[in-house]
Amino acid sequence: MTGAILNVGVLGVGMHPGAWRAEKGATSANGLDFYAEIGRLAEKGKLHAIFLADTLAADEENFERPILGAMDPTLVLAALAAGTRHVGLVATASTSYNEPFNIARRFATLDHLSGGRGGWNAVTTFVPAVAANFGDAPLPEGSARYDRAEEFVDVVRALWGSWRPGALVADAAAGIYADRGRIDVLDHRGTHFSVRGPLTLPRSPQGAPVLFQAGSSDRGRALAARTADAVFTVQNVLSAAKAFRHDVRDRARGFGRNPDHVKVLPGLVPILGGTEAEARARKDRLDHLSGNAELKKLALRVGVPVAELALDEPLPLDLVEANAGFRGSEGFRAAAVMLAKEERLTVRELLYRNGGGHLQVVGTPEQVAETVDLWTREDAADGFNVMVDVLPVGLASFVDEVVPLLQQRGIFRRDFTGSTLRANLDLEVPA
Amino acid sequence: MTGAILNVGVLGVGMHPGAWRAEKGATSANGLDFYAEIGRLAEKGKLHAIFLADTLAADEENFERPILGAMDPTLVLAALAAGTRHVGLVATASTSYNEPFNIARRFATLDHLSGGRGGWNAVTTFVPAVAANFGDAPLPEGSARYDRAEEFVDVVRALWGSWRPGALVADAAAGIYADRGRIDVLDHRGTHFSVRGPLTLPRSPQGAPVLFQAGSSDRGRALAARTADAVFTVQNVLSAAKAFRHDVRDRARGFGRNPDHVKVLPGLVPILGGTEAEARARKDRLDHLSGNAELKKLALRVGVPVAELALDEPLPLDLVEANAGFRGSEGFRAAAVMLAKEERLTVRELLYRNGGGHLQVVGTPEQVAETVDLWTREDAADGFNVMVDVLPVGLASFVDEVVPLLQQRGIFRRDFTGSTLRANLDLEVPA
Repeated sequence: MTGAILNVGVLGVGMHPGAWRAEKGATSANGLDFYAEIGRLAEKGKLHAIFLADTLAADEENFERPILGAMDPTLVLAALAAGTRHVGLVATASTSYNEPFNIARRFATLDHLSGGRGGWNAVTTFVPAVAANFGDAPLPEGSARYDRAEEFVDVVRALWGSWRPGALVADAAAGIYADRGRIDVLDHRGTHFSVRGPLTLPRSPQGAPVLFQAGSSDRGRALAARTADAVFTVQNVLSAAKAFRHDVRDRARGFGRNPDHVKVLPGLVPILGGTEAEARARKDRLDHLSGNAELKKLALRVGVPVAELALDEPLPLDLVEANAGFRGSEGFRAAAVMLAKEERLTVRELLYRNGGGHLQVVGTPEQVAETVDLWTREDAADGFNVMVDVLPVGLASFVDEVVPLLQQRGIFRRDFTGSTLRANLDLEVPA
Repeated sequence: MTGAILNVGVLGVGMHPGAWRAEKGATSANGLDFYAEIGRLAEKGKLHAIFLADTLAADEENFERPILGAMDPTLVLAALAAGTRHVGLVATASTSYNEPFNIARRFATLDHLSGGRGGWNAVTTFVPAVAANFGDAPLPEGSARYDRAEEFVDVVRALWGSWRPGALVADAAAGIYADRGRIDVLDHRGTHFSVRGPLTLPRSPQGAPVLFQAGSSDRGRALAARTADAVFTVQNVLSAAKAFRHDVRDRARGFGRNPDHVKVLPGLVPILGGTEAEARARKDRLDHLSGNAELKKLALRVGVPVAELALDEPLPLDLVEANAGFRGSEGFRAAAVMLAKEERLTVRELLYRNGGGHLQVVGTPEQVAETVDLWTREDAADGFNVMVDVLPVGLASFVDEVVPLLQQRGIFRRDFTGSTLRANLDLEVPA
């Protein structure tokens, strides 16, 4: 593999809350054309995968702008399977609000339809509003969500493997369709699920869809290290990212795995300009258009009321740390707090560096390229999920202006290297 | 609307169990190219919709041939949304083994992606093996399944309507994305579900995806009459079909609906030949290739052991009626039994007329056209789900040989009449 892994992360019409009002921005992420253009650009840029977010609830705040992940992302990717030829297709889906048989079948379907380009980003869902769309019970706590997720992922992987290599014979002349001896009934009976199996589909083109995991808590890391091919993580500080990647790889070794088979991919938000000043002006315009939504989002991420955040004061760390009732994403919270602490940032400065939670570079293509180079060179990341600020125009800029710089530095490939996502990520095929 | 509604029903590589071994047949229904060709043919024939089956379990019997509905059909249709422009896209999904929020979102996504061509065929699932993939409980009895289905469908329709017309403003200049006053929280609390809502997606292009219902029991008819835009039914006998359609329309009136807004569509299996003798030879070849699987399927449908069925003896009606433990599709059973009884058919004769449970015409394109003409003229059907014997070649024959005859008779349109499936079916748009 040549250098960094780069996926394009798609959240609504862009990562920035002002995206839908931006010049050349789209106002809706709900049409085929919107995704077709993203597919075209991703393949032009030789990116590894299109990575879709998922949202299982619309609450009050969501009505201010297009919802990030409003459509069922597995269907969007199926449509893209028809419209693209090389790029990987990864969708987020919750282990808390789905059934393992349905998820296994859906992603196996995606893998078959795309000729081996499908991937599942398994998340446990940390948004309380989602729970109310699926029953009376509130969102379970993190540890309970991960108990279920561990078993869920195991069942899905077992279903993906339930047709062993050679199980599909499909010899029409001889009239032998399948070799039953190579098809496994699971008869799984666990704490959360009973699933007989096998899957309705034979082994998929890349052996199994690529498994992403997103969640940086202790339990999240453990799940990723044991089962995932790649980890999507929130990292704002180089040293912390290095420690995170080291920890995940170490844990993978502990599970008897080759650590090179667990790729660590932080989110990266590039806000590009011809100069740093132009880039900052672009961000300020987007902030203004969004009614400073990033500030509200930061307040949610760190679990304090937005009224407690003054732009030119430091992040109120005492309040943040005192908030015991917090029940969101540990990763988002830790990344922002660490960055603010480490560099003694004001809220305003933090918002330049932390874009919707993720590592953000507001600057020139050269500055973005340098960040990718530095983080991969320093072993803090195997690459990035590039969370584009405004779609599709921000992706066009990234592909046209940043990708060539990375190729010149020799840290990004000039063409697709394999025919499956798994091959392009230099991962092993499941046995 | 001009004449009959015609959908193509897609079950694996064809309705006949021998399809995968047939000349010019496909051995797999798991690739994009297979569906792309079906999409191309359906649009060439100006058919109303592609109608996909769904199977949530693979059991022993399934390993003898490609599984009918092995892939998640909603993903297949999303891929077809990208590859077609006019034809409707309808997928089956179970109310027993899904959550209403996920189903509402998935079909709304399909409707948005396809520009208003999506449809959901709601089924309660009658295959016992499915239950074992979703927990410890056995398949509930029909009435319990329909209790859940009634509430499930109501929640889905309420979610589809949760963004009222005008709720999406998307005025980027003014910064107004949505009109919250036109977005309804459901706060549904029922027997089976608690769902807060609203949906993550605005009202879909055709107001709501077209709702199909498949199930001919008393409870199935009631659900269809109250909620569905179309009923997919199993009918083998003209007089019974007339009575069925009359009953559904009557019930619709009872719910205060215009009966013309509930289309009744029996399944129709054409096995075509240049002469009737050629068509019979074609069927005999398929039967032979399948190891007489249709006989086994008939035994399952009517709930008696296959050993009790002798080809040249009448269907053993005493055994059929004595079988109280039967827990399958009432519609499939009733249709076959009625046909055998009405015309005193031997098992062999029954198998010519009953194709995998459905009305079957083994004959010339003219004979198939005459059946469509007769049944629609006699008000026994608003059209048919055409269950093609061998895909894609049988669909090509239907489109090239039967459709022109129907057009000449003036009972089938020569082009798409509307831009949405709802318009093409002459249905009302939900308020």
